Amino acid sequence: MSSVSNTEWIVGVDIGGTNINLGVIPFEGGHPIAFRSKPTEPQRGAKFVVDRVVKMIRDSMREVMEGNGCGPEAFAGVGIGSPGPLDRKTGTVISTPNLGWRNFPLRDLIQNAVGLPATLDNDANAATYGEWWLGAGRRMSTLVGVTLGTGIGGGVVLNGELYHGAADAAAEIGHMTIDSTGRKCKCGNYGCLEAYASGPAIAARAIEGLESGAGSILPELAGDIQNLTAETVFEGVVQGDPYATEVMHDTAKFLGVGLANIINILNPELLVIFGGVARAGDHLFVPLRTEVRRRAFRVAEQSCRITPSELGGKAGVIGAAACFKKETYGEL
Amino acid sequence: MSSVSNTEWIVGVDIGGTNINLGVIPFEGGHPIAFRSKPTEPQRGAKFVVDRVVKMIRDSMREVMEGNGCGPEAFAGVGIGSPGPLDRKTGTVISTPNLGWRNFPLRDLIQNAVGLPATLDNDANAATYGEWWLGAGRRMSTLVGVTLGTGIGGGVVLNGELYHGAADAAAEIGHMTIDSTGRKCKCGNYGCLEAYASGPAIAARAIEGLESGAGSILPELAGDIQNLTAETVFEGVVQGDPYATEVMHDTAKFLGVGLANIINILNPELLVIFGGVARAGDHLFVPLRTEVRRRAFRVAEQSCRITPSELGGKAGVIGAAACFKKETYGEL
Repeated sequence: MSSVSNTEWIVGVDIGGTNINLGVIPFEGGHPIAFRSKPTEPQRGAKFVVDRVVKMIRDSMREVMEGNGCGPEAFAGVGIGSPGPLDRKTGTVISTPNLGWRNFPLRDLIQNAVGLPATLDNDANAATYGEWWLGAGRRMSTLVGVTLGTGIGGGVVLNGELYHGAADAAAEIGHMTIDSTGRKCKCGNYGCLEAYASGPAIAARAIEGLESGAGSILPELAGDIQNLTAETVFEGVVQGDPYATEVMHDTAKFLGVGLANIINILNPELLVIFGGVARAGDHLFVPLRTEVRRRAFRVAEQSCRITPSELGGKAGVIGAAACFKKETYGEL
Repeated sequence: MSSVSNTEWIVGVDIGGTNINLGVIPFEGGHPIAFRSKPTEPQRGAKFVVDRVVKMIRDSMREVMEGNGCGPEAFAGVGIGSPGPLDRKTGTVISTPNLGWRNFPLRDLIQNAVGLPATLDNDANAATYGEWWLGAGRRMSTLVGVTLGTGIGGGVVLNGELYHGAADAAAEIGHMTIDSTGRKCKCGNYGCLEAYASGPAIAARAIEGLESGAGSILPELAGDIQNLTAETVFEGVVQGDPYATEVMHDTAKFLGVGLANIINILNPELLVIFGGVARAGDHLFVPLRTEVRRRAFRVAEQSCRITPSELGGKAGVIGAAACFKKETYGEL
């Protein structure tokens, strides 16, 4: 365990398939300052992404040092959240389809470039742990986070600690089978939750229905039907379009099946939903809770709240810093 | 915490929908002596079952006292495993469809009748914990047990402790959805794992195929097709019947979907399979492992062994005693 003296800040880095979010978190907990967000642009290669992250870290640190009259010694280190699977001990990303990395020593590359100790954890784990530290799951015993975006990920906090499993691969919720002979998933299997309720899957289902002749304002909202995204569906829901509402309702049912499975296995106190889909509010959460009630064991369902993330887009950044602090100092 | 002095034995009780199994376990761990098994006959009412359990406990204790020249003070207490959901703190079975009990104070009824302290836990939790104490999962960090019988249950050991969840309802694996629009389950939902891979579900699927004209020796083995059970299917597999082998193969695939979901969520070191189905050996485990490999995250799948129970029918009895010792003395 390192000494805590003189450390005031932790840098939190949240690397996603679309954006890099980054900020500086007070050591004792708090919302990020010197927050930055830039596109990841993974197609420009791993070196480009690492260089961008390192530059963002340096810029944020400089901003904090100038604003607070402190030096680099005020920074304890860098917590990094990245898509997985990954090996926390070696700080290596084993493989991540969305970024195209394989056995990539992400932690050490950033650590060496910045000159501060760093830790690496799964992005969905980080977001969930952030929510446990400072958000909707503050200091609860048992909490599961579900991240809905380009993919679907998860994080599990048990007895107040992130649960990583035997090989850092726990909480891969997106590839839970909910229909064993169902829709084809990017992973090659059939019927994964991600094949129904990720952003691209929501859009794909919406497009299929439109191509089969469903009447809707969605084509108009999207301009070109092929540009239709999950965002377009939410927009349609907000405008009261019945077809968009039906697509959202189906999304809620599929998610409800997945969440009920989690509740039946883990019986958590809280399920936190991350990602843009959660913005659909009652359009999502009312049918979602109905499906969960229908499918989950009653005792387990009654003891579990389901709620959107409180920290929103900052959860991953805050949580990455929380992971660094926990791994380095043993507690938050 | 009670004192350990003078205690040499713990009574383990495993109450199932079909049989009550019971034995006396050495305090430091070991296989049951004075083992007894009798039909549960739940249709004769809750009082009948409790009276039968109490008589069996007294008979086993007497046998041990006579054989070892000890008195009742040599018994630390009674660990009870029962179908759930249940409330461990109050020792109450909340509801159990197979036994027909609701809010039934099982622990205190037995405790008061026998005059020894007792604890109550879920039967599948107990079996899993038994396997962790003295069986296939000896002292592993992370272990999931799956009990295949009239229903499908589960137990989760994390960091060497039974994980109970927020309301003692964790590990209800049988009602995990694997096909959200699939077979109707006794619980009222569609597509639960139990609706495909429990003993009665295996028989029901086999009968459906026969009624659709499948050629097989199964009707002959069963005498009357309506008497066909999962046991008949195993017997057909052993005799090389292609249709029985196909039914077993399908069972393995459905189970594989469920186990892959558990592996993706919990990334355990070991999955232990309990119940008669496990006797099918390679006929079950080869296609099961293939399906798991196909569906589970590679890192998680590679770090997880899948194996039949080592303790077999004694796991629940040994584990119920383990639960008593752990709850009463804090460790095994």
